[in-house]
Amino acid sequence: MSAAVADAFDFAAWSRAHLQATEDALSQWVGVDAPAGLGEAMRYAVLDGGKRLRPLLVYAASEAVVAAAPAMCREAAVRAACAVELIHAYSLVHDDLPCMDNDVLRRGKPTVHVQFGEAPALLAGDALQAFAFELLTPEGPAVLPTVQAELCRLLARAAGSAGMAGGQAIDLASVGRALTETELRQMHRLKTGALLEGSVMMGAACAQAPAAAREALSRYGAALGLAFQVVDDILDVTADSATLGKTAGKDAACDKPTYVSLMGLDRARAHALELHAQALDALAQPALADTRALRALADLVVQRSH
Amino acid sequence: MSAAVADAFDFAAWSRAHLQATEDALSQWVGVDAPAGLGEAMRYAVLDGGKRLRPLLVYAASEAVVAAAPAMCREAAVRAACAVELIHAYSLVHDDLPCMDNDVLRRGKPTVHVQFGEAPALLAGDALQAFAFELLTPEGPAVLPTVQAELCRLLARAAGSAGMAGGQAIDLASVGRALTETELRQMHRLKTGALLEGSVMMGAACAQAPAAAREALSRYGAALGLAFQVVDDILDVTADSATLGKTAGKDAACDKPTYVSLMGLDRARAHALELHAQALDALAQPALADTRALRALADLVVQRSH
Repeated sequence: MSAAVADAFDFAAWSRAHLQATEDALSQWVGVDAPAGLGEAMRYAVLDGGKRLRPLLVYAASEAVVAAAPAMCREAAVRAACAVELIHAYSLVHDDLPCMDNDVLRRGKPTVHVQFGEAPALLAGDALQAFAFELLTPEGPAVLPTVQAELCRLLARAAGSAGMAGGQAIDLASVGRALTETELRQMHRLKTGALLEGSVMMGAACAQAPAAAREALSRYGAALGLAFQVVDDILDVTADSATLGKTAGKDAACDKPTYVSLMGLDRARAHALELHAQALDALAQPALADTRALRALADLVVQRSH
Repeated sequence: MSAAVADAFDFAAWSRAHLQATEDALSQWVGVDAPAGLGEAMRYAVLDGGKRLRPLLVYAASEAVVAAAPAMCREAAVRAACAVELIHAYSLVHDDLPCMDNDVLRRGKPTVHVQFGEAPALLAGDALQAFAFELLTPEGPAVLPTVQAELCRLLARAAGSAGMAGGQAIDLASVGRALTETELRQMHRLKTGALLEGSVMMGAACAQAPAAAREALSRYGAALGLAFQVVDDILDVTADSATLGKTAGKDAACDKPTYVSLMGLDRARAHALELHAQALDALAQPALADTRALRALADLVVQRSH
């Protein structure tokens, strides 16, 4: 981002305001009517943690299309932002279970199954997924039915077997096995990329973006999604557990294929920068109004330390 | 059902045709684009098994509102029927996992985690839930956006923390603990009832039913849902594993509260008949056109042997 643009746009303030709106909405909505301790486990899994990158992508994409968004678009965006974070949170809860990664530390806290038990953690994940779709489909005039339907479509595809769950299945099948770069890219495109790109496209849907804007945002989201995973793999070998808030070196210890194991650290770093440039290139599209938040988020993804 | 009505309505033929349509659609749609063995586990969990009661309720409710349904309503109904069955199937996969009921037999076959492993079973369940919402939100003009949004809303509520998942949480918290009849009813209203009633209401949504029809169908669905669970509890103590296609006597062995343990067998049987009568009463409503399939399904629920 150039100095001139940075002057005109205070990303820290933008980010703070949108993170607060997301936390408030999640806290108001998640697990409130859930019986028998289920709500506590759902809230533990979702509140007070995480970078909230996916919600920020929803807002940034929506605002890139419609700079001064009308109330209906903002209501859709906060629901979409929370919904995509619920899907992300449920996937972490299930990923951490003993039959999957068997991880005990997440965001610096005991994982949900360590805190509440395995069966409650399984159920909390299931309920979080359902609640994501409930948030997207409010009764009444707050969000247009066409937007509700499109948001559900985008989220379901991003979360399902041709998206996140499919990527996790490839991941599961790949432990201890050599992957080519093409296979690794395919795995991450689904496992992490689909939901990140999905967040961007849900933002576009909230703003009822025209086709040219959607096409640009889709290319941005795809590049950003891959960049995110390359950086994740780099951090897994270069950062410590305290900084990450989860167990570092886990992938290497499990003999999981990563960009670093495949390309080496230097080439992986260069690849992350290349994807960053691709993401910014995609935004140079006249159908998009204000792409500053999206640009700042691309910077954040590549420069983050955890 | 009176003899005169039975003459005019061939439930066996109706049921056969709708079951075939459901099987064909599920087989065409489920797990087709899923990578790394995920699709096989999803298909194993869903195809060739189960009574398909929930899909039949969707069709029957839809046809009770609009006897000669237009193509758009039929397309919505087959998608809703499959979606609700996917949610049911995923819940069984997760319920059977070692950390939940640890069951090895389901519909006369090894459970999904026995066949494919725990982690693939967990993922298959997760992917089935996402796919349910994907089925409800096709692109293009096949199903009206308002209907898509309403179907997602109904399914998400029925499946989530104020529905099925909430009921499972109460169930989990109740093992080895005495429940009152009110608590037991609340548990089942969520655990099984919500999705059965949800099926009926999704049928109503497919047909864009007016308020009076919805109100009657909601009362029918609520009574039917409870009747189903009472009969389930009766069968758990009176039928053998081969007939049930799952492990019989399981609830008693786990010291789970049931209608039979609470009321005794005779009162439980009388209660099932009472709920059956309530379900039929609810259908006596001029806003409903042809309720014969719904009536036959109520009979089936109460008279079933498995």
